[in-house]
Amino acid sequence: MSFSSKIFPVDTVKMSDHSEQIVKGGRHLFPLLSKAFAGVKQIGVIGWGSQGPAQAQNLRDSLEGTGIKVKVGLRGGSGSMAEARKAGFSEDNGTLGEMFAVIKESDISLLLISDAAQGELYSKVFEALRPGSTLGLSHGFLIGHLKNVGAKLPANVNVIAVCPKGMGPSVRRLYVQGKEVNGAGINASFAVHQDVDGKATDYALGWSVALGSPYTFQTTLESEYKSDIYGERGILLGAVHGVIESLYRRFVRQGMSREQAFLNSSESITGPISKTISKQGILAVYEGLDDAGKKTFEEAYTATYPAAREVMEEIYDEVASGNEIRGVVLAGERLKKRPMGKIDGTETWKVGADVRKKRGQIPVHPFTAGVYIATMMAQIDVLYAHEHPGSEIANESVIECTDSLNPYMHARGVSYMIDNCSTTARLGARRWAPRFDYNITQQAYVDLDEKKPLDAKLVPAFKTHAVHAVLAACAKLRPTVDIFVE
Amino acid sequence: MSFSSKIFPVDTVKMSDHSEQIVKGGRHLFPLLSKAFAGVKQIGVIGWGSQGPAQAQNLRDSLEGTGIKVKVGLRGGSGSMAEARKAGFSEDNGTLGEMFAVIKESDISLLLISDAAQGELYSKVFEALRPGSTLGLSHGFLIGHLKNVGAKLPANVNVIAVCPKGMGPSVRRLYVQGKEVNGAGINASFAVHQDVDGKATDYALGWSVALGSPYTFQTTLESEYKSDIYGERGILLGAVHGVIESLYRRFVRQGMSREQAFLNSSESITGPISKTISKQGILAVYEGLDDAGKKTFEEAYTATYPAAREVMEEIYDEVASGNEIRGVVLAGERLKKRPMGKIDGTETWKVGADVRKKRGQIPVHPFTAGVYIATMMAQIDVLYAHEHPGSEIANESVIECTDSLNPYMHARGVSYMIDNCSTTARLGARRWAPRFDYNITQQAYVDLDEKKPLDAKLVPAFKTHAVHAVLAACAKLRPTVDIFVE
Repeated sequence: MSFSSKIFPVDTVKMSDHSEQIVKGGRHLFPLLSKAFAGVKQIGVIGWGSQGPAQAQNLRDSLEGTGIKVKVGLRGGSGSMAEARKAGFSEDNGTLGEMFAVIKESDISLLLISDAAQGELYSKVFEALRPGSTLGLSHGFLIGHLKNVGAKLPANVNVIAVCPKGMGPSVRRLYVQGKEVNGAGINASFAVHQDVDGKATDYALGWSVALGSPYTFQTTLESEYKSDIYGERGILLGAVHGVIESLYRRFVRQGMSREQAFLNSSESITGPISKTISKQGILAVYEGLDDAGKKTFEEAYTATYPAAREVMEEIYDEVASGNEIRGVVLAGERLKKRPMGKIDGTETWKVGADVRKKRGQIPVHPFTAGVYIATMMAQIDVLYAHEHPGSEIANESVIECTDSLNPYMHARGVSYMIDNCSTTARLGARRWAPRFDYNITQQAYVDLDEKKPLDAKLVPAFKTHAVHAVLAACAKLRPTVDIFVE
Repeated sequence: MSFSSKIFPVDTVKMSDHSEQIVKGGRHLFPLLSKAFAGVKQIGVIGWGSQGPAQAQNLRDSLEGTGIKVKVGLRGGSGSMAEARKAGFSEDNGTLGEMFAVIKESDISLLLISDAAQGELYSKVFEALRPGSTLGLSHGFLIGHLKNVGAKLPANVNVIAVCPKGMGPSVRRLYVQGKEVNGAGINASFAVHQDVDGKATDYALGWSVALGSPYTFQTTLESEYKSDIYGERGILLGAVHGVIESLYRRFVRQGMSREQAFLNSSESITGPISKTISKQGILAVYEGLDDAGKKTFEEAYTATYPAAREVMEEIYDEVASGNEIRGVVLAGERLKKRPMGKIDGTETWKVGADVRKKRGQIPVHPFTAGVYIATMMAQIDVLYAHEHPGSEIANESVIECTDSLNPYMHARGVSYMIDNCSTTARLGARRWAPRFDYNITQQAYVDLDEKKPLDAKLVPAFKTHAVHAVLAACAKLRPTVDIFVE
């Protein structure tokens, strides 16, 4: 994969033993946006879910003074109309309208409606796209769905993607913080899937720069949806939930009080472990432990890795085969009759709410660190085995956790985060969290407790893993900003 | 659906508000077998997994004196050769050979190799079948797999199925017990998928009678694989495991000793609850409770049903869409590198082993009964909604539990049963048990503990459910024999 831009400077960055081309972002590039979008009079932002509000506002702010209109398109009668109006989009000033009308009149249409809605409405969307216009996606779900049902994209439009590696609220929050710290934001991948007029790459890069991405790396839409849907079922949501439940139960069984069990599992992960990884990399968590802590980490890591890897491989296969996407579409029908319940009423999360209220010093529990990081590394290794780009692996498996999701989980609880993410992610987390919990409890903890021989090669492989250099390279490409979560 | 037989008496049985045609079995019908198999010189039994040993031996015993040879076919160098020889099949007397050679020379080939092996070998199997011969299946997995990959059955052979609604060891065990109690055995469904010579129905019925099926009902291979793969992910294996884990944890949290928690969850289900259902039907469990017990049952039932139903609907969709079958095939590749671990090392099952050793009086715990039966009824209702035959519903959701699997679980543990069932079932149980556990814990128990309003229509619907009459009709068709598990 390689690309060139007529507008933006493209850097080549060494990532461990390979190099990647990237575009560094920042507000100093905003003057280039009118050139990148030459000929574009209107960008339609379709949908007001997680990405919609963030992208519409970031684009509007970044494009101020260029004369390019950012117009939000929603389903007629959508309850989100009021939300959009609150953010300053309105029918009166021509920046809010019915979605298909907005698509028809836009030069670039960013399709940010839910996956389920994309599955239902794609043929009407395709009909509404003007020949020669551009369809923008922030996620490859639609590509996977079209493959499952044997349908095709229209041939006469550009198809591009910019996929922020963090949820919408983080994309907006860090953009706002970026006014003080230039370059603060959520990294994004971009893909050019169809380029009918030679402008697709610069449209995509301009879109990403305007969103405030600290850096933008290249991928394909297929690689994107595989890593994205896999990642959210894995360490981003499903695995972190399952890992915490398994640790909490183990700690309680071993005699810890319920509050201590929560503190040493959930709080430890979403607090100091995440923060250390974000600022200093994964290895720093291990290196910060004393000798006894290192030994405990190593045992936990070695026992957990195979159990987590087994589930990660299963998830990857389920995503790559189209099963997960097919499952999400099928769930869409069921959800019309039976909405999903919340997960936050169980003991773990009720204790958690109490613990958060009294929050003091939070320890890095070495056993917890070993289990969590083994699961993270298992996710990373499966992506390496399937030859995903280094930036994609680092962002989907580490940076999105530590810089976008875990800070929200730390403020409001893991269960809150899962109950409030996209339907696709939520369905996946509900399916796979318990599988991680059971497999780690049934395999890893049993192996440890029965002192079964473990694979001595795993810890050395962790210490010398290529991902550490990739994360260090990625860290240089963005300023360290703590996301501010209310 | 309807059928007629030139050989066996066909009965019409009233099942609640509909009727089904069935064939009652029994040893008094064995003299009809040579007529049913007229023209058949050899039946090849391919594979020696769960069904292979049972079917090969039952067929051999039932066909004694007819001159029809039952020959076992295995992969060259298979470790099962020795097992088959122990059961009296041997190269020397011409009743054991290489699988493709056996298929080539057989008039009827019963393909009882594992699902994964069927997925790998089906085209070689099809090539080996002589035109005009008969392919027999005991499970519709292959039909689902062919649909997924877009492949076809050969057109010039009969394709029939006889699907015992119990695992192989039960099929053999009850057949042996049937020498004393005529008609003891495992019910079976049959299907005629292709009939090239008009003999397919009687071949299938003869096969089923020879296996010792107390009664044989009609289905289609598609209906069979959907209900079968769904059922084992549901109440037969996955749901019963998840339900027990959730109950055990709840009871311990509420202050029960670990042994009492196991006794009142797992033991209660696999012991007296199963036995009552088997002998007197589902309602009898409820009716056997005192007033306080009935109230507890009703609360547990009402809270659990929606949570269990949600997962049951999800499983049915995943099976019907081909996702589960695709997942099993993908898992086959992974399992070559990473074998599945066992689930029996965790606390629940270790406590269980101790409890079994000291077994005394086992109570019907009313809360446990409510949760378990709600899950069973949710499974039943989803099958009704998808219009499966009444006999199939009753056998896949109730009779197979209480007459085949639960007695084994009661003797050796639920975890033992799961660790020792077919790969397809085991993969499914590992995926779905935790999902049931989490959903019941997160939704049902939280609703109860927070005293949320529950659906008052569920208990009356349970009490007047059509399945009770279906079960009563099925019960009349087989003698009550307790399966003897060593």
